[in-house]
Amino acid sequence: MTDFQAPVQDLRFALSHIADIENIATFSGYEDATPDIIDAIIEESGKFAEQVLAPLNHSGDQQGCRLENGIVHTPDGFKEAFQQMSESGWHGISLPQEFGGQGLPYVLTIAATEMWSSANMAFCLVPQLAQSATELLVEHGSESQKATYLPNFVSGKWVTTMNLTEPQAGTDLNLLRTKAVQDGDHYKISGQKIFITGGDNDLAENIIHLVLARTPDAPPGLKGISLFAVPKFLINDDGSLGQRNDLKCVSLEHKMGIHGSPTCVMSYGDNDGAVGHLIGEENQGLICMFTMMNLTRLLVGIQGPGIGERAYQQAANYAKERLQGSDSSGETVPIAEHPDVKRMLLDMKAKTEACRAITIYTAACIDRSKRAPTDAERALFHSRLELMTPIAKAWCSNIGIDIASTGIQVHGGTGYIEETGAAQHYRDIRITAIYEGANGIQAKDLVGRKVIRDKGEALAILTVEIRDLANSLLSSDNEDLKIIGQRLSESLDHLTAATDWILKNGGDDMAAVFAGAATFLELLGTVAGGWLLAKSAASAAALMDQDNADKKFLQAKILSGRYYADYQLSRCSSLKSSLFDGADTILRFDAEML
Amino acid sequence: MTDFQAPVQDLRFALSHIADIENIATFSGYEDATPDIIDAIIEESGKFAEQVLAPLNHSGDQQGCRLENGIVHTPDGFKEAFQQMSESGWHGISLPQEFGGQGLPYVLTIAATEMWSSANMAFCLVPQLAQSATELLVEHGSESQKATYLPNFVSGKWVTTMNLTEPQAGTDLNLLRTKAVQDGDHYKISGQKIFITGGDNDLAENIIHLVLARTPDAPPGLKGISLFAVPKFLINDDGSLGQRNDLKCVSLEHKMGIHGSPTCVMSYGDNDGAVGHLIGEENQGLICMFTMMNLTRLLVGIQGPGIGERAYQQAANYAKERLQGSDSSGETVPIAEHPDVKRMLLDMKAKTEACRAITIYTAACIDRSKRAPTDAERALFHSRLELMTPIAKAWCSNIGIDIASTGIQVHGGTGYIEETGAAQHYRDIRITAIYEGANGIQAKDLVGRKVIRDKGEALAILTVEIRDLANSLLSSDNEDLKIIGQRLSESLDHLTAATDWILKNGGDDMAAVFAGAATFLELLGTVAGGWLLAKSAASAAALMDQDNADKKFLQAKILSGRYYADYQLSRCSSLKSSLFDGADTILRFDAEML
Repeated sequence: MTDFQAPVQDLRFALSHIADIENIATFSGYEDATPDIIDAIIEESGKFAEQVLAPLNHSGDQQGCRLENGIVHTPDGFKEAFQQMSESGWHGISLPQEFGGQGLPYVLTIAATEMWSSANMAFCLVPQLAQSATELLVEHGSESQKATYLPNFVSGKWVTTMNLTEPQAGTDLNLLRTKAVQDGDHYKISGQKIFITGGDNDLAENIIHLVLARTPDAPPGLKGISLFAVPKFLINDDGSLGQRNDLKCVSLEHKMGIHGSPTCVMSYGDNDGAVGHLIGEENQGLICMFTMMNLTRLLVGIQGPGIGERAYQQAANYAKERLQGSDSSGETVPIAEHPDVKRMLLDMKAKTEACRAITIYTAACIDRSKRAPTDAERALFHSRLELMTPIAKAWCSNIGIDIASTGIQVHGGTGYIEETGAAQHYRDIRITAIYEGANGIQAKDLVGRKVIRDKGEALAILTVEIRDLANSLLSSDNEDLKIIGQRLSESLDHLTAATDWILKNGGDDMAAVFAGAATFLELLGTVAGGWLLAKSAASAAALMDQDNADKKFLQAKILSGRYYADYQLSRCSSLKSSLFDGADTILRFDAEML
Repeated sequence: MTDFQAPVQDLRFALSHIADIENIATFSGYEDATPDIIDAIIEESGKFAEQVLAPLNHSGDQQGCRLENGIVHTPDGFKEAFQQMSESGWHGISLPQEFGGQGLPYVLTIAATEMWSSANMAFCLVPQLAQSATELLVEHGSESQKATYLPNFVSGKWVTTMNLTEPQAGTDLNLLRTKAVQDGDHYKISGQKIFITGGDNDLAENIIHLVLARTPDAPPGLKGISLFAVPKFLINDDGSLGQRNDLKCVSLEHKMGIHGSPTCVMSYGDNDGAVGHLIGEENQGLICMFTMMNLTRLLVGIQGPGIGERAYQQAANYAKERLQGSDSSGETVPIAEHPDVKRMLLDMKAKTEACRAITIYTAACIDRSKRAPTDAERALFHSRLELMTPIAKAWCSNIGIDIASTGIQVHGGTGYIEETGAAQHYRDIRITAIYEGANGIQAKDLVGRKVIRDKGEALAILTVEIRDLANSLLSSDNEDLKIIGQRLSESLDHLTAATDWILKNGGDDMAAVFAGAATFLELLGTVAGGWLLAKSAASAAALMDQDNADKKFLQAKILSGRYYADYQLSRCSSLKSSLFDGADTILRFDAEML
């Protein structure tokens, strides 16, 4: 186990050169995001990650959560850390000032959350849920609901959960059965929910469960689902807590990772029915949920660079210290000197930076879609956000898993021993490809809703931007930038051809495009990562001649972009050809062949 | 958790159409390998996997091993299963009849061991070690050592361990420190060894530890290492067991997976020195170890298709039962009907079959290198075996990890829950890329010893064979075979170019080829898998018109080859370009950038 060092310098670089936060700070409402506030947020949230959260990561994994007499206990230290997080105001970076938040751009929340996820992914899940729930309530809550819940979420006095999944209804919410029956000014909720993160916990004094359920006369399917706030302790008119509601955590799941996060089976209304309050209107539950989907998916996406960074640091530290093998003079050397270990470390570094660039960029799209000065810009960045979200969620989680696996490999046998910590990252990160919509669903969302629905328009606009950068790099004097430009340009050709294929085949019968959806997502994610690393490399090259330039940092940044072009962008040609050739093969594979 | 069904039909197919076992059975010494003996071995070893080993897999993982008062206890049922395995004669399939074995081809041992690894990988490690140790003793043991040890290994009365690694000496055995001091007709051994599989266990009545150590006047480095047999209980002249030797298991490692297999820290000679007997000659220890290296590495390689098969079966069963989403008529369907799930399942199936083909083929190379009728054939297959071994070990373990990860993904959230079993496969298989020489070492071995040393000759001969098959498929009437032939032909061009690059750059300074070694291994493995799946597809197409042909099985076999061509062979072009472009980039990444 080694200490975690918050990647303050690299995140600060990404905020300026990927997100252009200096431009976001000019938007009305974001005036407080001055350079020194930005620095302070990144540095202080980084320190919180290093000093408070990181030391609880391994112990939290080993200890896990326990359910005793209906109460869930999180690992030692989690409650105190949550309290400290609340007292420091970390729940409210981007929440409206009227509810106690700081009203700063979302991109800062995302940057901070990346570092917290590096430090302790399992711990972060409950705080992340509160961010999403707050977003939802700001949009759909009544004035009284906002006044009741939001200040308590921002202060960390209360936390929240999302209750979608039931045993028979996972990806397919059509099959949802939980009931809600009106009873005066509230509803009585009954049913079972599974995979509920933080379904019970000891972090805060109350838990507001957001529960999807059906009223008795609701239309069948997705159009008959409503959303309810169901508090663990009923709330008196004066805001104080009353008696326990009719709901409980029935059991905890035994998971491969994120042991520090309780994943609960929840039972509602075993006795009289749990008291719930409608949010928004009846049968509009999914619409309410959709408003926060971009944020929740992005919050999963950042766990990719989060765990990637942690796994990379740990592997790099080990490789610098572990002596095995010798150089040409016969001297025993650290394994970091061996070419194959260099390859693994550079692979981890470049991929982590690509994931960071994609998530930071996507977060900036949230801010631009909300506050850019013109309608046209807001609309542009709204559709950019829609397009980037499945990439940020699925591509970054897949790559995060890959990075964590390489982290084990750098350690050799030591990496397989739990005390080392590399294995925990590998176990923890594996869930990110599954929760908040499995990555296959993200791919379906990408091709169906984000590419075919607008006839490829949003993607075409992005493509033009990428092409402009590629062209400008092609004429660079810097050999690395030139080659990056060349690979980016080629990969863009493959992406364009693949997009045309998707649009051509995306008619009434979507089977072929769905068979290729995951491959298309991988292709677009690979190009997007290459684009943003190319942008970083170009910025780094431009900064190199400045006074006080950190040349080693900037050279390494260019090298990340170059490596990514050599090893990742080069894959786009094969991805395209798999997409073209493979769909028919996949569809011929029938159940009798299983 | 679902039951395991031994893939008898597919292994039998591979034995005939990949290994050509009917031809091996004509070799002098292998006459007993008649068709009904082959069938009986596969069917019965498959039943043993299904009925005895598979039911202990999950419980073994959950319970793990424990060290109490210096004695290691394996999970409940393991001892009885080992006894049953011994009584059924399963340790001796390919061992000489004079020592109680059945003298059958190695390819049958490998086929059986694949099914046992599917059923219970952790259990299989101790029996696999005995296979390797027997191989070593047959080659290097004195007559009296053979007579003492071999019948006891074959009968399962005794087991064995391999003691190479020390805390400071993992990959780099130069740094080995364990001492051996001659004392009459034996040596006194002292030192610490780590990562010792089965270092202590309760499966058998004695354990013969094979220990690498240095004598006091040994030359430094690898040339001063000797090999010793160090029994847990000393052996009396009449073969009965005497007192405990001066060695013990100090602690057990806490690993991410293979919990059913005790991984021990061993201490030798804490008191008077552990009694050890020299095997072979002094300072020839590594040569002794090298004779069994091909077998031990292949035995790791088969864990790839082993876990791949198990993970595939489990995912396929789940996908057939789990109802989510609907078809065009609105009917809820099993997820196996969704294109993206079909893709995942076909991916798992094709990759498992590619790994199986590579390991079965490599095993057949052992038999051919030992018993083919002419010197020329034996020499050819010896160098083919040398070439294929790092592929079988590294490529199949990497692909096995990939398959197990997809197995989790098919399950969605359920896959992340330990009770399901998908997560165990993912945790277990991860070690295979590390032990018996981490995959980076395999890649170094491939480019250095197997390609550059003979100036690419062995690989060139293989390439001609692959080209012949590709050409014959190109002229096939079957559209799938034709496309497979085309992709195989293209991938072979990339492999040839990559090989030329390795040979050109593999001079005094090997840094560039070592930077690209893993990529080259991935490329060669991908082509080899494609070659053997093409062979399978061609055989399947030829069998299709036979009476009683299992058409569904044969169609699925062709589809595996076709999918692999669409999705895997298509990657060879990018692998080649990464190899060409990436080496210089990797070597510029220096320690100050970490």
